[in-house]
Amino acid sequence: MPSGKILVAQGGGPTAVINQSLVGVALEARRFQNVKLVYGARHGVRGIVDEEFVDLTQETSHNLEAVACTPASALGSTRDKPDLKYCQEIFKVLRAHEIEHFFYIGGNDSSDTVRIVSEEARKANYPLRSIHIPKTIDNDLVGNDHTPGFPSAARFVAQAFAGANLDNASLPGVYVGVVMGRHAGFLTAASALGKKFPDDGPHLIYVPERVFEIPKFLADVKTMVERHGRCVIAVSEGIHDASGQPIITQLAKDVEKDAHGNVQLSGTGALADLLCEEIKAKLGIKRVRGDTFGYLQRSFIGCVSDVDQREAREVGEKAVQFAMWGKVDGSVAIKRTGFYSADYELLPLEAVAGKTRTMEDEFITASGTDVTDAFRLYLRPLLGSGMPDAFRLRHNPVAKVLKRG
Amino acid sequence: MPSGKILVAQGGGPTAVINQSLVGVALEARRFQNVKLVYGARHGVRGIVDEEFVDLTQETSHNLEAVACTPASALGSTRDKPDLKYCQEIFKVLRAHEIEHFFYIGGNDSSDTVRIVSEEARKANYPLRSIHIPKTIDNDLVGNDHTPGFPSAARFVAQAFAGANLDNASLPGVYVGVVMGRHAGFLTAASALGKKFPDDGPHLIYVPERVFEIPKFLADVKTMVERHGRCVIAVSEGIHDASGQPIITQLAKDVEKDAHGNVQLSGTGALADLLCEEIKAKLGIKRVRGDTFGYLQRSFIGCVSDVDQREAREVGEKAVQFAMWGKVDGSVAIKRTGFYSADYELLPLEAVAGKTRTMEDEFITASGTDVTDAFRLYLRPLLGSGMPDAFRLRHNPVAKVLKRG
Repeated sequence: MPSGKILVAQGGGPTAVINQSLVGVALEARRFQNVKLVYGARHGVRGIVDEEFVDLTQETSHNLEAVACTPASALGSTRDKPDLKYCQEIFKVLRAHEIEHFFYIGGNDSSDTVRIVSEEARKANYPLRSIHIPKTIDNDLVGNDHTPGFPSAARFVAQAFAGANLDNASLPGVYVGVVMGRHAGFLTAASALGKKFPDDGPHLIYVPERVFEIPKFLADVKTMVERHGRCVIAVSEGIHDASGQPIITQLAKDVEKDAHGNVQLSGTGALADLLCEEIKAKLGIKRVRGDTFGYLQRSFIGCVSDVDQREAREVGEKAVQFAMWGKVDGSVAIKRTGFYSADYELLPLEAVAGKTRTMEDEFITASGTDVTDAFRLYLRPLLGSGMPDAFRLRHNPVAKVLKRG
Repeated sequence: MPSGKILVAQGGGPTAVINQSLVGVALEARRFQNVKLVYGARHGVRGIVDEEFVDLTQETSHNLEAVACTPASALGSTRDKPDLKYCQEIFKVLRAHEIEHFFYIGGNDSSDTVRIVSEEARKANYPLRSIHIPKTIDNDLVGNDHTPGFPSAARFVAQAFAGANLDNASLPGVYVGVVMGRHAGFLTAASALGKKFPDDGPHLIYVPERVFEIPKFLADVKTMVERHGRCVIAVSEGIHDASGQPIITQLAKDVEKDAHGNVQLSGTGALADLLCEEIKAKLGIKRVRGDTFGYLQRSFIGCVSDVDQREAREVGEKAVQFAMWGKVDGSVAIKRTGFYSADYELLPLEAVAGKTRTMEDEFITASGTDVTDAFRLYLRPLLGSGMPDAFRLRHNPVAKVLKRG
């Protein structure tokens, strides 16, 4: 006899809209009579192996709707990256609790976990339906036009640079803003959507898809300062030299590494400080300021794309529909169908799992320091409605009296 | 014969609403028949001595309204802090252009400039009306209930911490957020308004009104981590030891100083990084992340308090009214008259100029690491309408199956 139990969990870095997907699963599941209990695992796969489940069936739909509009992972998340043994533990717990449908909201590491768990269930001949639900502010999942969470983070970055540009125009100098993104530059490139007037910043954009060379960087900055009397720069935390070595390691003595063996890039202002020091020392520019957007860009409450919210909800809903009406496991993906409209499809887990998408060449200019109109066309509709706009005074100069000559 | 010329300028750090004050002056001046020309100086006092004026009379009211809603200083700003000689230069230019009314929007340094210029005009028996219009995100002007610009920056900080708290709850660890404020802790204290549930962060708040001691800090963090399994910390960039030495100088080798002889605190992630290193090294906590809010907190476009917008506009309007109908120079100040209502008065320039307000003792708890309800009552109405709210799932645990024991 079927248990009627489904399980949902959230993995990896939180986003502004990941709870929309969670609530999409929880509420959509209520439509299906074969679902009796909706469990949520606390802190992703870690909560599964520890059997830390909460019963979402007991939640009011009203509170679920309120949680949906709250950023970060309401169930808690984890940075654990399960290997085969870990996934076997997950499967053991799923079986013990008679889970029939497993939904994991996360990035490419999470999709790989779903792939292995799905494989374990198949080998054990246990009837488990496993669905991966996409999310990542990095926008680095293959097979997706874009990923839920990215549009809202992109909106934050665009708004931040629109403001930083105005601030820098008020008090001219050089401004460096460091944006998240280890391998993919989408989020850093989103800074370009903060530009309005032709001389607005960011004047230079550095993404990890291109090799970063400090001498070239300094020459670029010098050119822009000569042209505009100031320079606003967007830099991805993942910029690296020709050998693939992160620029940040050229500065930091003790570099922290995570469970995946990756150098810690976020949660430190070191890269911005390094670049500012270089500009001050080598170009002799006095007012040089660096900001690292850090966790604000993924967690700030009150800066969200309504398009992103809707889509994050829908990938959760579609995941349940694919699970209930379909016959295969997979990863839900967003497909662009118009300007702007989107639909959803279920991709094979192998097509997404553990793969990394980076920015397409057509999105980066030949100079390597700006984005193309193709990128603007790609990103603008995702930022949603109500984007703030910047205005300036017109230049009506008054004739000098004392310095007439 | 009167020239009918007025001049307005913006000084110091930009804010989200400083253009409201500018536009308040420009539009209110149009009501007065004796005003023929409204000039704006580019980049504050620097633009005055350089005679870099623009004619705001030629602006459309429509564009002025759009500029009013744009953050940062539309006329440009300056960090110049004029001495007597500089102020004499300013006066020389004002006289050469036959300026009859001078409006300077800025903080306490700017009010001191207005005071000296006013004095020069009086000594020269030149009929100049000089009015200082308040603005500063630091909220450190004496004689004001609060200053325009502070509520919007406070809103950003509260929203940032509400989000950072959610992110930190998702992936537990220690989070340090460094907030602007050299001498006054108001903006850092605003982080407390991001708290909703009793165990929400920020769990610790450090303001420059209290001496910062690293051993005490580490003990505080340890206590909070033991209590909550995590810790969110708000730190003012201006924290200092018992001798008044900024904590940041204990780390930085080459400390940059500005024209005022102040150590550069913003535009670097050094303080957050230093504190994170201390926590990692001394408390052995693994996941420790630091963010420096930097320029985002004063320039971010799309995070503004409607109360702040209204008041910033009104101080500009009232400045013109005080100038036209009154007989004395002065500094416009915000006075709280109810819960919540405000009115404006004109203070003598000497009452405000060059003085620094810090947080009142009644706003800081005895522990020195939190704010009182009096502070919440003070700040909440200023944040304005539509503050985003955070919700969480209720805890309905599911019985374990495998780990029943």
